[in-house]
Amino acid sequence: MISYPEMNREQLLQEQEKLQKAYKEFQDQNLNLDMSRGKPGADQLDLTMPMLDVLSSKDCLKTEDGTDTRNYGVLDGIPEAKKLFADILHVSPEEVIVGGNSSLNLMHDTIARGMFFGFVDSPKPWKDCGKIKFLCPSPGYDRHFAICELFGIEMITIPMTPDGPDMDLVEKYVGEDESVKGIWCVPKYSNPQGITYSDETVRRLAKMETKAPDFKIFWDNAYCLHHLTDHPDELLDLFAECKKLGTEDRVLMFTSTSKVSFPGAGIAAMAASVHNLQFIKKQMTIQTIGFDKIQQLRHVKYFKDLNGIKEHMKLHRAILEPKFKTVLDILDQELKPLSIASWTKPNGGYFIALDTMEGCAKRVVSLCKEAGVVLTGAGATYPYGKDPKDTNIRIAPTYPPVEELKQAMELFCLCVKLASVEKLLETK
Amino acid sequence: MISYPEMNREQLLQEQEKLQKAYKEFQDQNLNLDMSRGKPGADQLDLTMPMLDVLSSKDCLKTEDGTDTRNYGVLDGIPEAKKLFADILHVSPEEVIVGGNSSLNLMHDTIARGMFFGFVDSPKPWKDCGKIKFLCPSPGYDRHFAICELFGIEMITIPMTPDGPDMDLVEKYVGEDESVKGIWCVPKYSNPQGITYSDETVRRLAKMETKAPDFKIFWDNAYCLHHLTDHPDELLDLFAECKKLGTEDRVLMFTSTSKVSFPGAGIAAMAASVHNLQFIKKQMTIQTIGFDKIQQLRHVKYFKDLNGIKEHMKLHRAILEPKFKTVLDILDQELKPLSIASWTKPNGGYFIALDTMEGCAKRVVSLCKEAGVVLTGAGATYPYGKDPKDTNIRIAPTYPPVEELKQAMELFCLCVKLASVEKLLETK
Repeated sequence: MISYPEMNREQLLQEQEKLQKAYKEFQDQNLNLDMSRGKPGADQLDLTMPMLDVLSSKDCLKTEDGTDTRNYGVLDGIPEAKKLFADILHVSPEEVIVGGNSSLNLMHDTIARGMFFGFVDSPKPWKDCGKIKFLCPSPGYDRHFAICELFGIEMITIPMTPDGPDMDLVEKYVGEDESVKGIWCVPKYSNPQGITYSDETVRRLAKMETKAPDFKIFWDNAYCLHHLTDHPDELLDLFAECKKLGTEDRVLMFTSTSKVSFPGAGIAAMAASVHNLQFIKKQMTIQTIGFDKIQQLRHVKYFKDLNGIKEHMKLHRAILEPKFKTVLDILDQELKPLSIASWTKPNGGYFIALDTMEGCAKRVVSLCKEAGVVLTGAGATYPYGKDPKDTNIRIAPTYPPVEELKQAMELFCLCVKLASVEKLLETK
Repeated sequence: MISYPEMNREQLLQEQEKLQKAYKEFQDQNLNLDMSRGKPGADQLDLTMPMLDVLSSKDCLKTEDGTDTRNYGVLDGIPEAKKLFADILHVSPEEVIVGGNSSLNLMHDTIARGMFFGFVDSPKPWKDCGKIKFLCPSPGYDRHFAICELFGIEMITIPMTPDGPDMDLVEKYVGEDESVKGIWCVPKYSNPQGITYSDETVRRLAKMETKAPDFKIFWDNAYCLHHLTDHPDELLDLFAECKKLGTEDRVLMFTSTSKVSFPGAGIAAMAASVHNLQFIKKQMTIQTIGFDKIQQLRHVKYFKDLNGIKEHMKLHRAILEPKFKTVLDILDQELKPLSIASWTKPNGGYFIALDTMEGCAKRVVSLCKEAGVVLTGAGATYPYGKDPKDTNIRIAPTYPPVEELKQAMELFCLCVKLASVEKLLETK
């Protein structure tokens, strides 16, 4: 089989006719599949159902220090939940705030507070600094970018490399421009490429000189526990590296159990230096008396400790690994010989990122949609929804059952082929 | 018995000596009681324990429209929870957003959004309006005032009357000053006086002309279900009154189950016109994917409907009514004959407000503290923590068991007497 770029016009036209026929057949199937978001499948949700049984009307709902979780109080989390997240994030419990059901909410509110009040090391609130900017390693997480857009923070696209963000560029921006106040990072099994930052990248983030004294790394460690193989990636501990250099105030870490227990009904946490947290808690205590402590207790009683979570994550992996394999096998089989796309093979996380030929991503997503398969919008993985080369597509294999996933991926590959042929015909 | 103001100096000195002796005896008891916050007692928390049993691993966790509450999605609440709060607040479900565990959090975030983005009817964000102001009927809820202070919103004290805020003053301020952007109201069984706004007050709030086009009434209906007698207060429906006049966009309503189910582990809601909510949801959808839907389902499954909640509130009343009676009986017995204090006798809510002679409240709270009973800080019920006449004390009878409450109230009355005698001696 020859690759598409090698085909002449006649061969491409023949191929196009064949593909269009196959595409019509798909349309006739009236598919209705959603691969747009990183949602666990129903079988994954079933894994955590016994958590609903660990607290009953017969149980004592007190914490290890005697606090009644049923009443008001405790801003930053019950001791056992702080300990659990401390172990997950490799910090100490006093460096943790256990929040509500959403780490996105914690990140949004942290930015909002930064805008209004600045951080402990801010000369003034970010809203009073004129135009401020965030570095956005891309492709990245669309909801991070949406927060910047909401608050009018200018986003600077930083290309991702197999080692993480292009650190030469990052160092240049933060070293030269005082208005660059932060960077979004999903350092392990990044969304959407599944890349884990290299040790060198982490060390450079820890030691880089920042022109802004209150530069902040939003370290969204959403997938730190979400391995898909026997040889998980290792992520160097940024906070520990920073502590060696005295730069730990630049780090704000986030995670949650959204894809461990239940999305939207898990618990979230942020972690940072005590110095940072003291300042943040002064404002947070006006926002809320405290988060849901019964829910925190329920989680700790169910998982017990980090080891309990790790065991639980093996059950998730057993469901997800075949789904990722399905996607990768179909991509290998259908697209590899054609030289029209490349994609990542992550060891963990929730996504596979595929790059089409330039200028084809939007067309692929649109073709899929018209045949009943919804993907994440093309461009969504870039600031302002604008993928400069229109190549990146985020594939979320987790939600559909394997059989549906196969159908969806077959259609997807067909659409990649169709869009590529169309593109090649423009110039041949 | 003659009242204190009628006593001459010698009689007062005699009385003081007697009171000081009794006070020392209290100090020797080493009491350690907390009457500072409106917290339910442990026996009230026990009432809701069966709620922990309504969702188990055997149950289906889908909503009535088939949504899986265990997964992501649904920003504004599951349909049955929206219906429940709609019934509580006399609005329709599309006028409701069901939030997380805290109505305070919803109020804080609503103000934060107002500051940053304004409201649907704002010419510009509040942060860009120069100094803005809120009317603060006082005595009022300290946490409301703290939100204003956090965001630098200037607070204007509006005296409370038995009918609610002094509406002549309210109308004057909102009618003349464009920078007056809002008012805090706890319209039913107000914190701390237990006053319910009169029909006339509600009607005037609905129809008053406001200079600011985006004036907002923060209608914190925290105690709408919290009756203490067989003849509960009736609150006229502000939203309905506003709708008659086309002023409904000025109303933002809040409530929660914090003192129905579990404080800090209940569910909260806000309600407003669809026009208002559409604008707010556009920003809220960036803040979070959604709140804890399993928790919402748990509440609806347990309470079933408004009637179920009303029945449940009777159980709370059975515990609280004797506590309020204890406080009021002791106040009547100890202080009434002396003409040194006045207090409210609310039909619901969580507090009793007592006014001492001028300049005595701080001294009373401090005397109580030194003998082991913590009260809400004097002044806390006024903006900036400054009670202009230093008279108001918030009594929170709900948390201690009746026996402890008796002890605490006996000490409290003693301290009121002591402080009053001291004050009278200054001028006799």
